Amino acid sequence: MPFTQLPFKKTVSTVTLAFVLSGSPFNAVSFAQSADAPTADVSSANNASVSETVQGLIDSAMAGSYGYDITRDLTTEIGARMAGTEAEARAREWTVEKFKEIGLQNVRIEPFTVPGWERGVETAEVVSPFPQTLFITALGGSVATPEEGITADVVYFPTFEDLESAPEGGLDGKIVFISGRMEKAPDGAGYGPANRKRRSGATEAGKRGAAAVVIRSVGTDSHRFPHTGQMRYAPDVEPIPIGALSGPDADQLERMLKNQEEVELKLVLTPKSVGDLPSGNVIGEIVGTERPDEIVLISGHLDSWDLGTGAIDDGAGIGISAGAAQVILEAGLKPKRTIRVVAFGAEEIGLKGGFAYVEAHKDELANHVLATESDFGAGLVYEVQSGVTEGEGVLKAMASAMSIPFAEGKTTNGGPDIGPMANEGVPTMRFQQDGTDYFDLHHTPDDTFDKIDPKEMAQNVAAFATMAWMASEAETDFRADK
Amino acid sequence: MPFTQLPFKKTVSTVTLAFVLSGSPFNAVSFAQSADAPTADVSSANNASVSETVQGLIDSAMAGSYGYDITRDLTTEIGARMAGTEAEARAREWTVEKFKEIGLQNVRIEPFTVPGWERGVETAEVVSPFPQTLFITALGGSVATPEEGITADVVYFPTFEDLESAPEGGLDGKIVFISGRMEKAPDGAGYGPANRKRRSGATEAGKRGAAAVVIRSVGTDSHRFPHTGQMRYAPDVEPIPIGALSGPDADQLERMLKNQEEVELKLVLTPKSVGDLPSGNVIGEIVGTERPDEIVLISGHLDSWDLGTGAIDDGAGIGISAGAAQVILEAGLKPKRTIRVVAFGAEEIGLKGGFAYVEAHKDELANHVLATESDFGAGLVYEVQSGVTEGEGVLKAMASAMSIPFAEGKTTNGGPDIGPMANEGVPTMRFQQDGTDYFDLHHTPDDTFDKIDPKEMAQNVAAFATMAWMASEAETDFRADK
Repeated sequence: MPFTQLPFKKTVSTVTLAFVLSGSPFNAVSFAQSADAPTADVSSANNASVSETVQGLIDSAMAGSYGYDITRDLTTEIGARMAGTEAEARAREWTVEKFKEIGLQNVRIEPFTVPGWERGVETAEVVSPFPQTLFITALGGSVATPEEGITADVVYFPTFEDLESAPEGGLDGKIVFISGRMEKAPDGAGYGPANRKRRSGATEAGKRGAAAVVIRSVGTDSHRFPHTGQMRYAPDVEPIPIGALSGPDADQLERMLKNQEEVELKLVLTPKSVGDLPSGNVIGEIVGTERPDEIVLISGHLDSWDLGTGAIDDGAGIGISAGAAQVILEAGLKPKRTIRVVAFGAEEIGLKGGFAYVEAHKDELANHVLATESDFGAGLVYEVQSGVTEGEGVLKAMASAMSIPFAEGKTTNGGPDIGPMANEGVPTMRFQQDGTDYFDLHHTPDDTFDKIDPKEMAQNVAAFATMAWMASEAETDFRADK
Repeated sequence: MPFTQLPFKKTVSTVTLAFVLSGSPFNAVSFAQSADAPTADVSSANNASVSETVQGLIDSAMAGSYGYDITRDLTTEIGARMAGTEAEARAREWTVEKFKEIGLQNVRIEPFTVPGWERGVETAEVVSPFPQTLFITALGGSVATPEEGITADVVYFPTFEDLESAPEGGLDGKIVFISGRMEKAPDGAGYGPANRKRRSGATEAGKRGAAAVVIRSVGTDSHRFPHTGQMRYAPDVEPIPIGALSGPDADQLERMLKNQEEVELKLVLTPKSVGDLPSGNVIGEIVGTERPDEIVLISGHLDSWDLGTGAIDDGAGIGISAGAAQVILEAGLKPKRTIRVVAFGAEEIGLKGGFAYVEAHKDELANHVLATESDFGAGLVYEVQSGVTEGEGVLKAMASAMSIPFAEGKTTNGGPDIGPMANEGVPTMRFQQDGTDYFDLHHTPDDTFDKIDPKEMAQNVAAFATMAWMASEAETDFRADK
């Protein structure tokens, strides 16, 4: 990633910041060596405008391993925790205990139900001309093939857009293969475009008569893990099964299709919907001393996909937000406003926790002063983004305290589970994490704890503690229209 | 890898040679920027002592994609090709066609049989205290658990040596977990020590009464692929099942064991032996014009493990050796000695092809002038190693022609399948390939074609063509005791 893609103001020179990830051969990322550049060590910051209290929080967070320890224990003691499963239920109980242990008040679970979906058999096999197995996984929400599978010729679309612009019909009984590579970017900008085939591939292929769909995984790695993720059916199109091939398997299929008129594939995917299942949000608070009804909300989501142990997605978010609260509690600080930590349930299958939160708290959303979520791993925060309509100066002061550039002129919604409350007018902000390598791991078995760098995570915890404290103490309520 | 670990003679400065592997985030390796340093571009070499013929071969190899194309087609059109399987048989037929296509003579299959072994179900599950699945694969040759699996407490040994020094008995009915990390090194020096647990873990645990064994994979990556590979049973010890956990899963189990007195694991591994199966070596030649009975042998092995498509292990070796012969043939050169290309079968399960070759050719081994094999991926060759007792000057001239340092004072056996003939006195040499990242992929599903760099592979092809030609033209027969 060239430095010039980042909107830093003062560039002196670029340095290479190697992300040392427990022996993992991750790419290095270039950042600016400038007064505004983010760093994994802000404990020695010497900014006269930063209060002793805030600097103390930053120093504690940077010296400790608050978020790291919580994420380690969640991913080790629970592991994968898919929305609606018994494992997600255990994760809620685990989180209740952890929230109490670190000293949060009013710890409770707010339950809701979600549509259950279970993975079954998943195999893909080239029948001819070059018999061999391919690595595939069903996309979340997909319907099944018959038990004996679907065997059909493959029709290749280099990109989702090629399928969209194909004529109606003409794919009767075929297996559609949609390729298209995702670009790497620190802010994950490639995800939206690449994700169109995951979300709508089955609908577009189904409209044209196809029997099933395989896509190149929405990911940026070259490993043989397919990436899962939620898909959707349009209500007026017959649902057909859809799975993702790993990058190397998509390469393999493309090589076969390049020189062959016909490639026959056999696909067996037997996931199933299992009715309504319990989920829930876990909430804990540091109750404010002066304005207890006014809420500063920091969060992550507790559920993960079923393939990995959900470390970067989103055990890290739970660790960062709960760890930030722990730093404030251990400092013995008493915030004026209430700092609320939320571990959302069932994010992966459609922000169920975020919507349930809005439903359960609609009467107090007007008192939500500022909200954010960490749901992009635990990479170094390189930018502070604003979703407020008033009091931006406070966000700039947070950025300055953390030596993180403030994103002038950008707006943000604060994270996926914050979206629904942002739509109801809750002010938001975002610590933009470096996610250059995030989509190497995202929604694969490879999303495990060893991929997290403790120093980078500590910087995230420091940022969240700074935000929670400064927002709780600020005079503004961050909204212009009150 | 610091430069100082490599025995180069003249160091001017070090440069970083980034291995650009199709988007794969591999580590960079530092090499010496010196007159002797290896480079992926030797086509512009201007060494007055290199004959026009040899320089022509090098230039052709570097400008072409001989080995790369062959490896691509083998791994695409056949895919995985485990010893004894129908896929290995298809690979033999494929190789016969390819050898004929590039113009080799006397193309034939030399058949032999091998003990068949098939992978079955393979699952590992932490039953308590933290229920979750772990990623495991059976080691080649392992016996099975009962169909319902083995459920038992885990006994942890940080290293294989810890198990070896444990008292006899005391592990009755337990599942032994042997960890121990493999060190990365360009020459794969960490493999031997790390591999002891794979080879002998079941024997040492079985001696002490254990019911089964899981090991940390013999590998250097942090991905969630377990590494398979052949294991052995001692004849006097009751065989017990053995599987390998991926690195992140071994980490997970270690974290659980750190704080818990008892961790219960359920292991289901149902591989089976399936009796004798056909395998074979594929051979092709450029028959010598003056000494047709004297043989220069270049080779790779055709079989792979069943998990990946066998690109680095060892489709690359097939591509490099056949590609080198193709370069000589396309140049219209007529070697004095016979250049023989061998695609060995069934290397992975105990050098079966190497032994079968010695058996089939024992009467002409005395006429084998020089032999080598490529079986360490397709990374840049950084050293020429000698296994000859005479005529080392010719090897030094090969090294010089390729601008690759010659390893003074080292000896080598030329590659795994060359071992059996080396034991019978056949002179050998070796182009030492950079294998720093080789054990990230070795024996996993991730061993796929996208991991090969065409430029580095071309340098390997150039080296093999140089060796084959210069050995066929040399006056020496490389052995002192003839």
